Amino acid sequence: MNKTVPFTLEQAQAWRDRFGTPFYVYDESAIRKTVSDVQKAFSWNKGFCECFAVKATPTPAIIRLLASMGCGTDCASISELAISKASGLSGRRIVLTSNETSDDTYRSAVELGAIVNLDDITQIDVLEKAAGIPDTVCLRVNPGSFSFTSGIMGNLQDSKFGLTKDQLFEAYSILKKKNVKHFGLHCMAASCCMDGTYYPLLAEMLFNLVVEIKEKLGIQIEIVDFGGGVGIPYRETEKAVDILSVGAKVKEVYDSILVPQGMEVAIYTEMGRFITGPHGYLVTSVRGFKHIYKEYVGLDATACDLIRPAMYGAYHHITVLGKENAPKDTTVDVVGGLCENNDKFAIDRALPNVDYGDILVIHDAGAHGRSMGYNYNGMLRCGELLMDGKGEVKLIRRSESLDDLFSTFDVDSEFNY
Amino acid sequence: MNKTVPFTLEQAQAWRDRFGTPFYVYDESAIRKTVSDVQKAFSWNKGFCECFAVKATPTPAIIRLLASMGCGTDCASISELAISKASGLSGRRIVLTSNETSDDTYRSAVELGAIVNLDDITQIDVLEKAAGIPDTVCLRVNPGSFSFTSGIMGNLQDSKFGLTKDQLFEAYSILKKKNVKHFGLHCMAASCCMDGTYYPLLAEMLFNLVVEIKEKLGIQIEIVDFGGGVGIPYRETEKAVDILSVGAKVKEVYDSILVPQGMEVAIYTEMGRFITGPHGYLVTSVRGFKHIYKEYVGLDATACDLIRPAMYGAYHHITVLGKENAPKDTTVDVVGGLCENNDKFAIDRALPNVDYGDILVIHDAGAHGRSMGYNYNGMLRCGELLMDGKGEVKLIRRSESLDDLFSTFDVDSEFNY
Repeated sequence: MNKTVPFTLEQAQAWRDRFGTPFYVYDESAIRKTVSDVQKAFSWNKGFCECFAVKATPTPAIIRLLASMGCGTDCASISELAISKASGLSGRRIVLTSNETSDDTYRSAVELGAIVNLDDITQIDVLEKAAGIPDTVCLRVNPGSFSFTSGIMGNLQDSKFGLTKDQLFEAYSILKKKNVKHFGLHCMAASCCMDGTYYPLLAEMLFNLVVEIKEKLGIQIEIVDFGGGVGIPYRETEKAVDILSVGAKVKEVYDSILVPQGMEVAIYTEMGRFITGPHGYLVTSVRGFKHIYKEYVGLDATACDLIRPAMYGAYHHITVLGKENAPKDTTVDVVGGLCENNDKFAIDRALPNVDYGDILVIHDAGAHGRSMGYNYNGMLRCGELLMDGKGEVKLIRRSESLDDLFSTFDVDSEFNY
Repeated sequence: MNKTVPFTLEQAQAWRDRFGTPFYVYDESAIRKTVSDVQKAFSWNKGFCECFAVKATPTPAIIRLLASMGCGTDCASISELAISKASGLSGRRIVLTSNETSDDTYRSAVELGAIVNLDDITQIDVLEKAAGIPDTVCLRVNPGSFSFTSGIMGNLQDSKFGLTKDQLFEAYSILKKKNVKHFGLHCMAASCCMDGTYYPLLAEMLFNLVVEIKEKLGIQIEIVDFGGGVGIPYRETEKAVDILSVGAKVKEVYDSILVPQGMEVAIYTEMGRFITGPHGYLVTSVRGFKHIYKEYVGLDATACDLIRPAMYGAYHHITVLGKENAPKDTTVDVVGGLCENNDKFAIDRALPNVDYGDILVIHDAGAHGRSMGYNYNGMLRCGELLMDGKGEVKLIRRSESLDDLFSTFDVDSEFNY
């Protein structure tokens, strides 16, 4: 797919004048379209809910937007529960899918009426002591192996997440004795998987488990949560997952396994990257050049704004705004200013000739971008804009100030700049 | 070397009661001893200054402690200049060794009287326009190859840092014409290098350059800055670099190259990791266990508190407090609660049997630890304690609150916990 930018150089320059670079900008229309596609793909399923993985883009304005379309949230921590609450969500539209969970987190989740998704059999006791066992409990299974396991998730036997199948059955039995009324089953077996058969194959495994759980324990699972794991094309050579086709294939599996049993389950998904990833852009200005053993283009953004290339060696497409059609006749490393050599947005990347002050747009930064920001080298994390259908932006998260950095210190900065 | 903890279980429990876990604690006496060793190693050199790499531990109380012993700072950004100023430093005890430097950063450095260390020949113009050319300028050379290049720094021809040798000579000529009076030469050619001949070999290369610069340009370099790069033993099987021996070997090189020329230079070092790395401990409590395809011990700390294992696959030694002499008869993965499978402090680590609530101490976290903290999954970054020679602690950086996390949002948290 050919990667384009949904705003012009003139728009970006105007935003730079107002807010300074770097900043993130999210395309509201495109996010709405993606949510709408996901909901359409699963519209055949009564009770379907896309519970957006807050960790992907934990900005209340984004969560409010998604909530206004009927999405819920997948929360990994008490902070993400707070973000969900501040975005107007409560009850069964929130799923707590956390690990090494604190008592406070369980209490907050139960107070909010969220669905608690236990990561381990030992957590039944922890939950009971912390908050009591709620009416509804979900369990996360780790099947040990699964055919669409990506490199990042690794072998599921090396994954710290979830219960084994034996533990799953034991845990449901215990919960039943503790008078749990409503049960969920959760599994996430991949990360950024580009294969459209991932959800259908996961559905087959989970729906068969639902039948087996009914047969063996007399428990009717009401919610089947597929987690996330659906990928996005970071490279132009990749093709986007066709979510409508995925939904139709899941329906076939549903119709062949659950319908003959007279069973109904509500499907939950916890997509993060798929919803916001392609529709967030890191906008940054060219600050310098180096011509040493290699050619470098230096930016005012750093790995502190987008850690994925430094941490995972991830590829992100880059557009030089206003030069979309210029020949790509230079090969450069595109770097940030961190005093660390992994602070490179691109290595040996073919780009048009770049000038000082040019605006570069780093694509597919809408998920796991600003949310993974850090302050190494004293860098201040950038702000976020939301662009509406008319191309107007509003500031939905301000950039950090020196005072923010100093706020946890025992002195003030007394520094003017 | 056998890794020990300079505080007891009872002390750690008392600190946990006061501050909660996780937290960092720094051993002031040990930091003082290390600084003293470094200064002793180079006491033969008039003008020697250890300019601590702020990025390693950017906490004002730590910088104040180092400044009180005569250290300066190596700053990578305007924030680190502000931290230096807030810690009482100014003038030539501050070196700005930055990349893709903003005009504001140059202006602030010049206002503070700091030594500006230019990373590229193009930066002469940028500095001149931003702040004028100061009396003293340093240049960072990238020799292209060097025998003690570590894996992290990589091939120096792939390193984004510094000027080529040709550019170096050209840049000094330009600066001389612009009436610069005092010149520095900087090079950093390794990261976490455990070989005691690194600084001596670097010294040989740089001192020969000093002579060549004098011969060819008539410029007398006054400051030679070795940067950082001296490693610490993360594993018990490794041996610490003997800095006294390093200093003595550098003296031999100095005596053989510079003294016969009648030349004097002040040596600067920018050690960060070497000074604080071994003397900072991440203290964390056991929050849970999992027995699935592997055995897991879950902590209340996460990669958000210490990213090095997740980002670099780094090894950090772990002590179970109070069980130092117990047999290590379990093999476990030690994990944090992030919803990301790289959040593992240790993989297949032999530990004594661990119980719920046990306090684990993660060693060698004093540098590039809290400073690389992030807020992924909504995690709040932990605080820092400084332990004095009597074993008393004071809070030198408070932990983050939910309000801190929300401070850049457009809503308040309205969440009580």
